[in-house]
Amino acid sequence: MSENPTACLLVIGNEVLSGRTQDANLNYVAKRLGELGIALREARVIPDVPAVIIGTVNEIRARFDHVFTTGGIGPTHDDITSECISAAFGVPWEIHQEAFAKMNAAYKTGDFNAARQRMATMPRGATLIETTASIAPGFSIGNVHVLAGVPRIMQAQFEAVAATLQGGLPIIMRAVHGKGVLEGAIAAGLSAIQDRYKTLDIGSYPYYRPAGGGVAIVAKGTDAPAAEAAIREVAALMQELGGSPVPGEPPA
Amino acid sequence: MSENPTACLLVIGNEVLSGRTQDANLNYVAKRLGELGIALREARVIPDVPAVIIGTVNEIRARFDHVFTTGGIGPTHDDITSECISAAFGVPWEIHQEAFAKMNAAYKTGDFNAARQRMATMPRGATLIETTASIAPGFSIGNVHVLAGVPRIMQAQFEAVAATLQGGLPIIMRAVHGKGVLEGAIAAGLSAIQDRYKTLDIGSYPYYRPAGGGVAIVAKGTDAPAAEAAIREVAALMQELGGSPVPGEPPA
Repeated sequence: MSENPTACLLVIGNEVLSGRTQDANLNYVAKRLGELGIALREARVIPDVPAVIIGTVNEIRARFDHVFTTGGIGPTHDDITSECISAAFGVPWEIHQEAFAKMNAAYKTGDFNAARQRMATMPRGATLIETTASIAPGFSIGNVHVLAGVPRIMQAQFEAVAATLQGGLPIIMRAVHGKGVLEGAIAAGLSAIQDRYKTLDIGSYPYYRPAGGGVAIVAKGTDAPAAEAAIREVAALMQELGGSPVPGEPPA
Repeated sequence: MSENPTACLLVIGNEVLSGRTQDANLNYVAKRLGELGIALREARVIPDVPAVIIGTVNEIRARFDHVFTTGGIGPTHDDITSECISAAFGVPWEIHQEAFAKMNAAYKTGDFNAARQRMATMPRGATLIETTASIAPGFSIGNVHVLAGVPRIMQAQFEAVAATLQGGLPIIMRAVHGKGVLEGAIAAGLSAIQDRYKTLDIGSYPYYRPAGGGVAIVAKGTDAPAAEAAIREVAALMQELGGSPVPGEPPA
């Protein structure tokens, strides 16, 4: 996977750190980036604090091919992502003429007030991310893609960006699970399989269900035949240990 | 809230970054830390890569009063948190005699194999986090608390640590929501309220429901009377704008 582009997700919002809101964007972005062949290498949740946003954006945009941010681009005082991105890039935060014209046309006369005009205020040089999911667009600047926090809008904006990105080989996952199989019993054999399939990430995940638990083994990588071969070896290993391997992830 | 201790959560696991697993620990830790008066300032999700784990742990343990890690302390080859914490602290990774003795007693003869003995191998100086939720303990070293990834076990271990921590004033939240109220309409008045309550974080969160959306306003801080007064002002503002404010968060 080392040749695939890399990405980092930055979730901006006090509400996730306070526990008020359960983030739903990471899982969506993670799955979709995998399908696009872009490796999500890190995700961070940070508060609505300018110095933290600016510092974090500058650190991670240098380290990853793509940065996606979610949250903080609405009209209220706690929506400060856009001006912080301007500060991070050292460019003026100013009315984006195209965004302003489109939003002005979309709102009823008198409704495009100062608060909403802030949503048309962006770092100089920003490219709009337009969707039918919201009147206010997201935007990209450099390798940073600035998306809404509301999942429905975020997903539409993510897909609009995704259509413009050069991905790599899709990152696929193959799995097998064994009811009653214990991690501690399978560990040594599993480690030997991982050693033979160095291009894969093989993960071991115990699961617990009312009807009984077990372990799920997942092989992840860009080489589907290798992942399938590795999972066949894991299944054989489970069988050797007296387990009954079943292809795929355990049912929820 | 500035006098409350601070914390950072480090979620260690490829499975969250691949989208295979939806993290459930952040929300639990966020809520509980708030109740304990410890401010969760950041959360990160990182992969099972030693250099990343070691570097991140050393960065964040210097910046926050407490670091909680979840994941990567099982018996399989992809469980590398414990040895990485040793490397981060620059101490030997060695058998913890007390953990070894207890685990040896808990497993049936012959079952305490090499893989499981790795779970009794810890940074020198680690203090055990013991619970009835699992045979293998978590551990603390310095200000870093190393917990399991499985939510049920993580929660038990978190509570065992929490009982030993000096918290601050509980961080409380008060909310009001207004059906049909739009963020863009309330923004200016809300900003003025935030300016008058500088010790609070006032957040604005639009919501969408089949029966109609609106906006929820949440005041967060350690001063409950101030939060209640601020929320009363928000309710009055909603009413002025023709909305019908309802105390609390919108129903799910």
